[in-house]
Amino acid sequence: MSKKQTPSDFLKQITGKPVLVKLNSGADYRGILMCLDGYMNIALEQTEEYMNGELRNKYGDTLIRGNNVLYISTQKKKDVVLFE
Amino acid sequence: MSKKQTPSDFLKQITGKPVLVKLNSGADYRGILMCLDGYMNIALEQTEEYMNGELRNKYGDTLIRGNNVLYISTQKKKDVVLFE
Amino acid sequence: MSKKQTPSDFLKQITGKPVLVKLNSGADYRGILMCLDGYMNIALEQTEEYMNGELRNKYGDTLIRGNNVLYISTQKKKDVVLFE
Amino acid sequence: MSKKQTPSDFLKQITGKPVLVKLNSGADYRGILMCLDGYMNIALEQTEEYMNGELRNKYGDTLIRGNNVLYISTQKKKDVVLFE
Amino acid sequence: MSKKQTPSDFLKQITGKPVLVKLNSGADYRGILMCLDGYMNIALEQTEEYMNGELRNKYGDTLIRGNNVLYISTQKKKDVVLFE
Amino acid sequence: MSKKQTPSDFLKQITGKPVLVKLNSGADYRGILMCLDGYMNIALEQTEEYMNGELRNKYGDTLIRGNNVLYISTQKKKDVVLFE
Amino acid sequence: MSKKQTPSDFLKQITGKPVLVKLNSGADYRGILMCLDGYMNIALEQTEEYMNGELRNKYGDTLIRGNNVLYISTQKKKDVVLFE
Repeated sequence: MSKKQTPSDFLKQITGKPVLVKLNSGADYRGILMCLDGYMNIALEQTEEYMNGELRNKYGDTLIRGNNVLYISTQKKKDVVLFE
Repeated sequence: MSKKQTPSDFLKQITGKPVLVKLNSGADYRGILMCLDGYMNIALEQTEEYMNGELRNKYGDTLIRGNNVLYISTQKKKDVVLFE
Repeated sequence: MSKKQTPSDFLKQITGKPVLVKLNSGADYRGILMCLDGYMNIALEQTEEYMNGELRNKYGDTLIRGNNVLYISTQKKKDVVLFE
Repeated sequence: MSKKQTPSDFLKQITGKPVLVKLNSGADYRGILMCLDGYMNIALEQTEEYMNGELRNKYGDTLIRGNNVLYISTQKKKDVVLFE
Repeated sequence: MSKKQTPSDFLKQITGKPVLVKLNSGADYRGILMCLDGYMNIALEQTEEYMNGELRNKYGDTLIRGNNVLYISTQKKKDVVLFE
Repeated sequence: MSKKQTPSDFLKQITGKPVLVKLNSGADYRGILMCLDGYMNIALEQTEEYMNGELRNKYGDTLIRGNNVLYISTQKKKDVVLFE
Repeated sequence: MSKKQTPSDFLKQITGKPVLVKLNSGADYRGILMCLDGYMNIALEQTEEYMNGELRNKYGDTLIRGNNVLYISTQKKKDVVLFE
């Protein structure tokens, strides 16, 4: 991430890229970030819905309401091998 | 989804189309998207209420209050066959 | 529902009609919609309170605070026969 | 209820009358409605607190914070005889 | 309570008096009401914290954040004898 | 606490002093109050985190987001001996 | 922490440093604080997600939505040895 002045610079940088959106409910949504606004309402393309890591649904275009968003991340989740 | 500048462009595009509205409670509402406003209050026609994928109720015109909305999606849910 | 420009057009159309108001808590309130405001505070007449489809209370005039509202619907609930 | 233009007309009409205030928590508060403001902060006199229909406490003057209010109703609750 | 125009008149009247502040969590806080603001942030002196009617803690000056407040009442709780 | 006009006077008075900050989650945070703003975002130094009265963590400088704050108190908690 | 006038001074001071962000859900996020805004939306680099002290995921750039933040702290958590 280059030097960001504000979080919205960060968000502009990742528009058009594959992202992972984590919701407060714990569900993950992966897709191409088309656009988002000041409330962090997020429009995704080719949306995939994951619960506990399992693919549950595929949608076309999806708009996620910002207040439900926990975080939005760029890099594919690099699952960490947990040493049991 | 064509190049969207803002989420509200996305919403204008899907007005008049069949949509799936997922609420925070987990319930799904399917119907024709008539209109919506800046709070994502959503007016649907021919509304069907689904709980855990089961049709529970049919209403005529329904207005869903925006703060309850998790996401709104265009394409019919393409249920993904989960390999047990 | 005729062509609506905004959800508030929809609400004006159904003023004075019998409505069903579903709250986040799951309770249903049926009555005549007298008026409502921008927060979706809803004034009902001849109010009936239903829990899990059972009539629990009858009130005269009732004002429901908007933030508790899940949705407001016009047509009487057409219960769907679920094929067990 | 005469023809109301807005919910606040309704509230002005019932000022000074006995009301039932239902909170999100499920508790009922009965008393004389002295006044309320735009947030639906409600000042009651001769306040009685009911839980599951049982009288739990009596207070003098009480101010209930508006965000906790589910609804406010005029007529005494006409308990409905439920046919078991 | 004399004729109140607004809830804030009520609050001004009880400043400097012993009050009971009930929080959403169910806890009660008793003390001398020093001052409060438009968000109902409440400054108390000689604060006592009660859980289920049991005294749990004593603090000196305490500021309670308004959004947690359920209600604020003047008269000492007149416990009602419940007929078992 | 001298005569306070507003809660913010109270907060200015306790800046630089040892305080106890109780969060909605039930956790207690003790430290030196460095500063806070209108949202009650609170900056503490020498922060100690307590859960159910047990010291769990020590941090240097910590900023607590205001919406999580239940109350902020000056005097050290004078634990009250509860008569079993 | 030098004399802070406001919490935002505190936040400016720790930009570019390793921080610990605790969310309301209890999860911890460690990373380099790139920037944040008035809502406490927080952009982190080299993000690590911990649940109950266990490393669960690693992400590249991550934007955490401010309303989920409990606190943000500078110094590495100095785990306190609890005397059983």
